[in-house]
Amino acid sequence: MAHIALEEGMPGITGAFGFRPETAKPMRELAEILLRGESTLTSAEREAIAAVVSSGNECRFCQLSHSAAAAEHRGGREEDYRWIEAVKANPEGADVSAKVRALLRIALKVRESGKKVTGQDIAAAREQGATDREIHDTVLIAAAFSMYNRYVDGLATWQPEGIEAYKPMGKRMALEGYAQGAGRR
Amino acid sequence: MAHIALEEGMPGITGAFGFRPETAKPMRELAEILLRGESTLTSAEREAIAAVVSSGNECRFCQLSHSAAAAEHRGGREEDYRWIEAVKANPEGADVSAKVRALLRIALKVRESGKKVTGQDIAAAREQGATDREIHDTVLIAAAFSMYNRYVDGLATWQPEGIEAYKPMGKRMALEGYAQGAGRR
Repeated sequence: MAHIALEEGMPGITGAFGFRPETAKPMRELAEILLRGESTLTSAEREAIAAVVSSGNECRFCQLSHSAAAAEHRGGREEDYRWIEAVKANPEGADVSAKVRALLRIALKVRESGKKVTGQDIAAAREQGATDREIHDTVLIAAAFSMYNRYVDGLATWQPEGIEAYKPMGKRMALEGYAQGAGRR
Repeated sequence: MAHIALEEGMPGITGAFGFRPETAKPMRELAEILLRGESTLTSAEREAIAAVVSSGNECRFCQLSHSAAAAEHRGGREEDYRWIEAVKANPEGADVSAKVRALLRIALKVRESGKKVTGQDIAAAREQGATDREIHDTVLIAAAFSMYNRYVDGLATWQPEGIEAYKPMGKRMALEGYAQGAGRR
């Protein structure tokens, strides 16, 4: 049971968003811009950063919903779901560009603490062609999921088990986005 | 030097906000609602939660600017600045209500991980009169500062030393707020 009275049957952050729509609005907008807005990183790549950070924080709802979104951005085939599982299991050996691997490394440091990011981490990402904007967005995606994860778990929201429950949600997150209340069940 | 090209002389989050105003907008709005919006917690109490979390994360810019904001909400006297320093140094013995002490305990757990918040922590806050909305907002303030702190430090922004540099900023944050771009130097 959640720590506060959230509407029953609303999974993860959707229950928390329903409790206080006023704070949900900017939180949804931030996710929309970061994950679906104009960027030289694909939405699948950005959702993978979100999923990897959420996996590190062991937030089941965020991890599985954003894994599903990442897979759906690639077409939603079995192999796309296997791809994101492999990325989370081993970000260093992930089947992504060398640039995204370097960005994942930065994101995982931000997950622990912003202070862990070194000039060397940044230089390594630049060597693979990462731009300032890509580095900025990677840091902010990792920082934002450090918030979303804590919000979802800190209220002890209801979080369904297993990826199947998250596939329709991931499809809506990928196709309709976050700003309009997509991501609700 | 910051990890990416931020405008010189813009401290902490203001440099990052200037780099990408599009993401700054929802981040500012969230801070405005959480710290200055309608609430049964005073703004000084909410700024204290933000300062205590930022202190735990050792983010100098966030810690000192929100300490200054907390003090300015109480009048900005020397004793108000001593008050927030004492709250940060020892949240358990802080000169705040028993309810706010219980909420600070929850916030410090969220800082580590949302999963650390127990039913007992929530029950203890309720015994001191905390409402669902106050618990929700405490969790979200702690979660949001887990984001702001990482954003500020993950980009290695410029962060002035010493509280004096933050007093005028804290005054603007307390009086003018966050939504309109206050908090800029």
